[in-house]
Order: sequence, then C-alpha cells, then structure tokens
Amino acid sequence: MAVVEFQPVGLRVEVAEGTTVLDAARLAGSDLGRWGIRATCGGQAWCGQCRVEVLAGRVSGAGEKELEMLARLGARDGYRLACRARVLGDVRVGLQPVHSGLRLQVAGTFNPPAPEPAVAPAAFELSPPEVGDRLGDADRLLQALGRVGCDLEVLRGTTDFLRRQGYRGRAVTRRGEIIALRPEGAPLLGLAVDLGTTKLAAYLADLETGELLRAGARLNPQLAYGEDVVARLGYASASGENYARIRGAAVEAVNELAAGLCAEAGCGPEDVHDAVVGGNTAMHHLLLGLDVSQLGWAPYVPSVAGPVDVKARDLGLKLGTGTYVHLLPCVAGYVGGDHVAVLLATDLAAHGGVALAVDVGTNTEIALAKDGAVTCTSCASGPAFEGGHISRGMRAVAGAIDRVWLEGDQIRYSVVEGGEPAGFCGAAVIDLVAALLQAGLVDRSGRLVKGRPGVEEGSEGLQVSLGGVPLTQGDIRQLQLAKAAVRTGVEALLATTGTGPEEVDRVYVAGAFGVAIDPGNAAAIGMFPRLPGATYVPVGNAAGVGAYLALVSESKRLEAARLARAAGYVELTVHPGYQELFLSCLGFPGGA
Amino acid sequence: MAVVEFQPVGLRVEVAEGTTVLDAARLAGSDLGRWGIRATCGGQAWCGQCRVEVLAGRVSGAGEKELEMLARLGARDGYRLACRARVLGDVRVGLQPVHSGLRLQVAGTFNPPAPEPAVAPAAFELSPPEVGDRLGDADRLLQALGRVGCDLEVLRGTTDFLRRQGYRGRAVTRRGEIIALRPEGAPLLGLAVDLGTTKLAAYLADLETGELLRAGARLNPQLAYGEDVVARLGYASASGENYARIRGAAVEAVNELAAGLCAEAGCGPEDVHDAVVGGNTAMHHLLLGLDVSQLGWAPYVPSVAGPVDVKARDLGLKLGTGTYVHLLPCVAGYVGGDHVAVLLATDLAAHGGVALAVDVGTNTEIALAKDGAVTCTSCASGPAFEGGHISRGMRAVAGAIDRVWLEGDQIRYSVVEGGEPAGFCGAAVIDLVAALLQAGLVDRSGRLVKGRPGVEEGSEGLQVSLGGVPLTQGDIRQLQLAKAAVRTGVEALLATTGTGPEEVDRVYVAGAFGVAIDPGNAAAIGMFPRLPGATYVPVGNAAGVGAYLALVSESKRLEAARLARAAGYVELTVHPGYQELFLSCLGFPGGA
Repeated sequence: MAVVEFQPVGLRVEVAEGTTVLDAARLAGSDLGRWGIRATCGGQAWCGQCRVEVLAGRVSGAGEKELEMLARLGARDGYRLACRARVLGDVRVGLQPVHSGLRLQVAGTFNPPAPEPAVAPAAFELSPPEVGDRLGDADRLLQALGRVGCDLEVLRGTTDFLRRQGYRGRAVTRRGEIIALRPEGAPLLGLAVDLGTTKLAAYLADLETGELLRAGARLNPQLAYGEDVVARLGYASASGENYARIRGAAVEAVNELAAGLCAEAGCGPEDVHDAVVGGNTAMHHLLLGLDVSQLGWAPYVPSVAGPVDVKARDLGLKLGTGTYVHLLPCVAGYVGGDHVAVLLATDLAAHGGVALAVDVGTNTEIALAKDGAVTCTSCASGPAFEGGHISRGMRAVAGAIDRVWLEGDQIRYSVVEGGEPAGFCGAAVIDLVAALLQAGLVDRSGRLVKGRPGVEEGSEGLQVSLGGVPLTQGDIRQLQLAKAAVRTGVEALLATTGTGPEEVDRVYVAGAFGVAIDPGNAAAIGMFPRLPGATYVPVGNAAGVGAYLALVSESKRLEAARLARAAGYVELTVHPGYQELFLSCLGFPGGA
Repeated sequence: MAVVEFQPVGLRVEVAEGTTVLDAARLAGSDLGRWGIRATCGGQAWCGQCRVEVLAGRVSGAGEKELEMLARLGARDGYRLACRARVLGDVRVGLQPVHSGLRLQVAGTFNPPAPEPAVAPAAFELSPPEVGDRLGDADRLLQALGRVGCDLEVLRGTTDFLRRQGYRGRAVTRRGEIIALRPEGAPLLGLAVDLGTTKLAAYLADLETGELLRAGARLNPQLAYGEDVVARLGYASASGENYARIRGAAVEAVNELAAGLCAEAGCGPEDVHDAVVGGNTAMHHLLLGLDVSQLGWAPYVPSVAGPVDVKARDLGLKLGTGTYVHLLPCVAGYVGGDHVAVLLATDLAAHGGVALAVDVGTNTEIALAKDGAVTCTSCASGPAFEGGHISRGMRAVAGAIDRVWLEGDQIRYSVVEGGEPAGFCGAAVIDLVAALLQAGLVDRSGRLVKGRPGVEEGSEGLQVSLGGVPLTQGDIRQLQLAKAAVRTGVEALLATTGTGPEEVDRVYVAGAFGVAIDPGNAAAIGMFPRLPGATYVPVGNAAGVGAYLALVSESKRLEAARLARAAGYVELTVHPGYQELFLSCLGFPGGA
C-alpha cells in the first residue's frame, strides 16, 4: 500500500501500489473538476486535463504518448498525466494551479502608509564627454547625482547605457549608492514577499505612490521536500545538494511569481528596485543560505535574527540590477519575520489596551501587547488546524466542509463551492467539536459518548460523520493537542505579563484560518481562555501586509526592527509549570 | 612563412610553416638554456625540458608520446613540447618560468609607513547560547564586536564556525562589517597587486606589522590575447566570450600568484583580508568587467576613474571570506591606477621643488610636480623602449645586450648573464644610438652615415652590428618616434605649468626601464630636454610599491584618491601646437 498526498488540498489516501494517480485522486474526492483535474478522454492521455505535478516520491515512467502530450502542453519537468502515472510508493502530488479553492489569502486590509521608500529615483542628463575630460562615465554620473558609490553590475553597464540612451535617464539610488540605471519614464517598483511554509504570496508596489499594483500567490514548491518546517530542516541538513535544491526551489518560485506579476503590470523584474521578505525563521534561513541544523535542537537559536540586507542577485533573485532584499528580523528561532510583519500590520504595539495577535499554523505564534510592550511566544500546535493529522482533514479548498453549526439538535454544514464534501478544514473541525460538545456527543475529557445518536462505530473506533465524511475519536484527540498548545501559549503570556483575561480587549487572528475561524466556537473548545471583553478581528494575510508596509515605507522597516528587538519572548519549554499548564488545557471547558 | 614570438623574451623570428617551435627558438637565440629551454633528448620527446606554453596561434596537435610526457610533467592545458609542436601560422609562445632573466622587478625601495590597515582584527569569546536566548549567533557576535553588519558568506558560516571553535575566535572587521571569522591566532594578511600589461607582481603583507612577507611576479597571461593594451582591448571588445576569457586569464593568474605567495608564507588565501590593485586603465577595466570599447576611441573616457571597492569574490578572486578589493583610482583613460601608485610611492606631490616621474612603457605616463600640484600626461611611446618594433629587440632577459658604451672609438657592450647576444633591450638601443651619435655614425636627423666604419649594408638597408646582432636604420627611426613622444609629453608639461627645464631638480624613473636606463644617454638622444639641475632616481617597481603602501595604510589610500582627483591632466592630442612640437622632437640634439 502507498499513501498519496494531494497538495494544496492536503488530503491523503491510501491505495495499492500500481494505482494511477487519477484513481487515487478519485478516491480522495468525488468531484475532481473542482481541483482542476478532468479526464475528458477517459484516461487515454489525449486530453491532457489531468496534468499534475509529482512533488515527491516515485511514480512509473512516462511513455511516448504521454511525453508528446506533456511537450504539447509545455509542461515543466516533474509534470505528469495523472491517468498515466502509477504510484510506486508514497507520493506527494501537486494539483496546481487549483483553479478554484485554496484561499491564497493575498489580501489583507490596511491603510497604505505615505510612501517613503528606501530607494529614490533621480533623473539625470549629462553632456557627452569631450577629449580631455578626465572623469569616467560613472564618475560624472556620481557627481551629477551627488552619490558616493555604484553597484558593480551598474558600473559594468554604465558606459553602454549612457551611449545608448544619449546620456540621460533615470538612476535609482539607495543611500549613497546607484543601484540601477533605467530609461526615462521607467517605473520604480518594489516587491514584498510573504514566504510561507505552504504558500508564497507576493505584492508588487509602485514605490512612488505606494500603490499596490498586483498581488499573487503560489504554493511553496518546497512542499516537495516536506510539508512542515521540521521535515524541511531535516531534508536540508542532510546534504549540501539537498540544501541547494530546497533553497533553489523557493528562489525559483519567487522569481517566477515576481516575473508573472511584473508581466501583468506591463513591466519587468528589472523595474523592481527594492524588496522585502518576511518568513518564519526556517524559511528566512533557507532563503539566505544559512545553517539550519541548529534550529532543530535546543536552544533553537537562529544564525541571525536581526534585519539583513543583501543584494537580490547574491540570493539568486532576478530583480533590478543592484536591488537589495531586506529580510524582516526574527524575534527568535520560532518567531520569525512573518510574525514581526503581523505585529507591524496590526500596529499591535500602539494598541491602547491589551491585545493579542495570533497567527495559527503548524507553529502558532502569539503576541500580547500591553502598555506598548509586546511579548511573544510560539507553540507547536501541529498541523490539525490546517487539516493535517485529521483522517479526512484538508485545506479550505473546494470540497472542504468549512463551517459546521447546530440548528436545534441537527448538525448542519457547508462545503466550499458546494457539492459532495471531501473532508474537513481545520476551522470546521473546531465548529464540529463545539457542536458535539453542546449537543452532548462529546464529554469534557474529549471522549465521544457511546450510544448518543450520531456516534457510530467506525473502523478506527467511535466516530461521527457529516455527508459521509467521518471525524474520529483520534481526530478529536489531535484537535485537543492543538488547541491545548495554543491555550498554553496564551496562558503563559497572560501570566508572564501579569494580565487578567478580562483585560484583553482585542484578538487579531491572522491568516486564512483567522478568516475562517468562529471565535465563539474557538472559545467553546477552550482554544482561548474566556476573554469577556475581547473583540475578534480577522486580519487576513497580515504577514503579507506587514511586508508590504515595510516595503513602501522605510519608517515601517525601522519600526519592524525596533519591534523585533524590543519584543519580549517567552520560551514555553522553560516556562514555569509548562507541563502542568499544558495538561490542564487538554480538556474542554464546562458550561458556557 | 610564419612569425614566432617568444615571451617574455620579446623576440620574434620568421620561420617556414611546419618548423618546430624548438627550431624557431634556436633561431632566436643560440643559447636556449638561459631561457629555460633544454633539449637533452635531442628532440625525442622524452626529456620534457623544452616544455613551452602556446599562448596564441595554431600549432600541430600532440601525439600520444608527447601527451604522456606532458601528463607526467603535470603540465596545464596549452603546454607543449617545443620539439614536437610545429607552427601552422603566426604563434606566440611563452617560455615560462624564465629561470633566469626577466627582471620581474617586484622590488622597490620605500620606507614602510606605520601600518594603518583598512581592516582590523578583533578577538571574541561568547558564552554558548541557552534556551530562551533570542539573539541569533551572528547577532550576538555583532553585539559583542559593536558592528552593524555581516558579510553574507560570513553569515552563512557563522553558526558552524562558532560551534566548531567553541564560540571564540578572531573576527576581521572593515568599517561596520564583519568580513571574516578565523580561529584564534590566524594571521591578518593583505595582498597588493601591480597589474601590469606584461607582468603581474604581487606582494603579501602582514597587515598588523606592515611587514612585507613575500613578493612574486609572473607574466600576465593576457599576453595570449595581444601583447599591448590596444590589441587586448580589440580582442575583448569582439565578443562576450573573448571578454570573459581575457578577464578570466588575469583573475586566475592573480589567484595562482596569491595562493603561491600564501603557501610560501605558510598560510592560505583565506588569510588575506584586504587587497589593493593598481593597473593601467585598461587592465583596471578588464579586471572589473567594465566596458572597454570606448577606451579605444576619442575621447578615451574610462567607465569609472574614481576608486572602486568591490568584494573580491564578485571579481572571481579567491581571498578571505568577505575580503574587499580596492582598485586604485585612475587619472584618465591613459593614466591609470598604476601611475597613481607611482605618485604615491615617490611622494611626488610633497616634493619641494620641481620633479618629474616617468613610467616608461608602450604608453609612457609622465607627471610633473611643482608647488605641491601634480600634472600628468600620457604619450603613445610605442613598444620600442621594451624592445618591440626593433628588429632584434627583446626584453632585458638573459641574452639581451643591456648596456652599450664607447671606449675610445670602440663600441663595447654587455649581455645579461653573458654569452652570445640574442638581441637588444630598449635601454641598450638608447645607449647604442647615443654612442653612434657621439662617434658620428648617425647624424642629427637620425640617418646612419654611409661609409663610416661599422656602418654596413644589411638586407634592410644600412645597419650596425654588435656581436652579430644588427640595429637597422628602421630601428633607429622607431627609437626616434618613441623618444619624440616622451619628449613631447615632457615639453607639454613644462609649457602647461610654466616651468623652465632648469627648474626640474629630480626625475624619478619607474619600472625595469628606469633601472636600466642611462640618464646621460637618454639626454644625449633628446628623450628628455636638458635638465641641468636634475638628479635621476630609478625607483624600481614604484607601481607595486604604491599599491603596497595603499594596502598597509588607509591614509595612503585616501591620499591616492586625493592625488588622482587633484592631478591636472594634459591631453596631448589637443595640446596647442602638438603636431609641430612632436615633429621638432624627432631629431637628435646637437653637441653635448
């Protein structure tokens, strides 16, 4: 038997070796069209509509007919026809693009700050050199612009540029350095990147107006080397080749994303003169090419946590000639630049009262702001909130049960884009367990109550089902572990800062999960303590928004550095009474 | 027929196609051993002692026996056995190393300045990180050292370094940046490079003491792509591949030279934390990878003339982790960083009276200092002073006539390392013509006087011979053109600065030629005006010395920048009356 995992859907199915990927996909969901897979030709390899990307694992080789079709489709390496590829072991398959579904969540609401970019355009017009002139082309340019240095690649192109452009054009400068020479009228663009474990989101900005021109996202192709951070660090640490491969995958994806956004905006990557990247500490380290093996072991220290500015080309990123990339600072080994971006986007430190910011994921980062001071922590919540480790868990894409609620004693649910449900997304698991608790089908210890209507015996013990999709006793245990981890983090922050739950007046919930989650149900399962005075505010992709703010405004970038430096940090594993606290958070709360 | 040119000897011989390189070499000089060529086996390809490097042109392919021998000798690509390689057209051959001979002239006398390097060592000892520590490894290092940034490659190695070295070591910093991490006790070395058209000289310094540890030189392998600057610019401009090849040749040669010097000093290139390069504008541009085609055309402007600091690795130089290379500034398209280095080494601007500094070569740079102000010019003196364009001209290596003088009415001469003469070096041509003038064998217009004893009819007209080596009427014409060019430059500088020849109290003559030249004879042929109050001071490889000074002392580096910026520049081609001046300098002076 072999496990086939579909991304970004997140579903896994077990099939016999030799099964085609198409048949495995059929097992995972009855309506494949919603995930971008069709088989008009009935599996004859002539429609090409079942094309998938084999991200990891072994499948049978492609025959001549399939190769011909793939060539006709212009498919990149690694793409296969699902009707032809037979699984030869555990396999991870990418359904990409997912035409409908995966909330790539590039959006987030924010007030654009006044543009205050780190780079500046400067129009220039030089008189052509004459015999006896001593200054070189670049010297005259530097003199005219009052700058002291010139990027080496700019220097290499200066003479040719001036002669072609009639000694006039637009220079882009950063501090004392000329980082690009462009024709008159060329745009001044910037790129903000939210480098997530699962998805990469990118934002193209006009740095002169601060205007967001385009936004887009794609799966992080590092999924091929491990679904979560820990798996990827293990892969990357195993050899230099592995490291280069996993690093290269992210770099290439950012390049493609940037090129795509630029093309849509009618310009090119050479117009991108500044970039900001926010990612968790592992993504940040992998992009920079830093040692990562130490991130997997106590004391979990980063190679570098402070802000880093490097030339894009030194990372392999194809942007403007001498463009720098600013990597947002990290707070600690497991609180990265993505979380600093969330702090920036929510302006958390400026909150008057007490506010929490929660970025839920495999690792959940939580910040508490009180009197202008921010304290952070990170908890290993595991993949349950993203549908992982749940037997029929999946991401919030087409076919996922995304909401569950009680109508009287009836459990109701909705499915993303309708149709037959294929699995549960994380938020729906919370909804469902809250409903089961309320209906008395689950007790406070988390046990399904045998004999209650709807509680049935499944192959793995007790379970309940919605539309034929089971949620097992084991799944409820997974949820308990995940919510206990988050609750422990919140409690530790409250205790460390001497804050009572009633003082919290706002909870920002970031990410796709933040939009999906029902705060009442989250409270009902005890993921958060009772916060009677709190308003829940979903903030969308706050990590992306924060990176964008730091891109268009240098003040915001400095603020991010200050925030990261000033933030307090609670390391849960050494927090007094951590074990007891965690165990006490495992059960469900009693009463409302 | 084909011309075979031997480097660094500089001799050319014409042979029939199909002649072996060994036979061609025999034609060029009767005693080949002095140029490092032996043929113990009599041309049977089993002694390997006639190994040469084919720098340019086509020779016959190597057979199995020769390939075997070359492999046994560990010969690099391009090396051949002279007894086996038959010339198939014009060929340039390198006799390398020249065991005896070529005055690579790495030495120069100077007072070492107080060491004041641009980089500083800093010992550190950190406590190992503990759980709950938020700062990354590099953050703690930066904090401990009070620095603000870290080279990307240093960053990539920091975590591993600290763990291997027990959190202690020696950091190398430059301004606010950490550019290397080394074990405790590692040396702090610097490299100065004199990037000459013909030779590369390198100097390894202990930057903490200022002490010169090692010096060495080798031929510039760019000789394969043209003997002089103009030929190389033409080659480099023809295609990107050509450019990469000619650039790569210099980079590789500097890397080899640096590695060799380091090995001799018992350390490695990774110990070299700073570097300074001085070269003429063309060498400078080719090393940086700048456009060069414009250097060949009026107005001959450099791409950049000001000082440039770049990471060594961005140029392909293999030195310390984040080592910078400082390229000495150029004054103009034909007055480069090598000449600025001469100004620095001679401390010309500080000279109290009026001084000239002359760096004789294919292009001769001349500077005049008066009242602390320096004015430079450059004249196209051609290769005659280096033995080029003289029928039996050669460099001052073994076998060259290097001195000629009159004893009564007898012309005497000396040969480098004795033995039969093979040709004249440039200084000897000056000596000989001065002697011929004094003896009345040449008249003031430069004509050999028919009928005078010793003036004979050769295959190319009148000539005189020393030890069977002829100097022809044409050779004398070449010398006239060369000395007139220099004289024109000196006259233009005197005129521009309103200086009388009698005011000049010192003439620094740089380079191998400066050591070899007889000032009296140079004056006798009118290469310089009569400078009755002047002392001639040969300053050896002042370009190398200047680069060395700028390496060990940052004040000297700043001074070089000031010198280059402040220097006046006379462009001869637009100097008033240039043509008439040049023509008036062609003849020889009358009387003593």
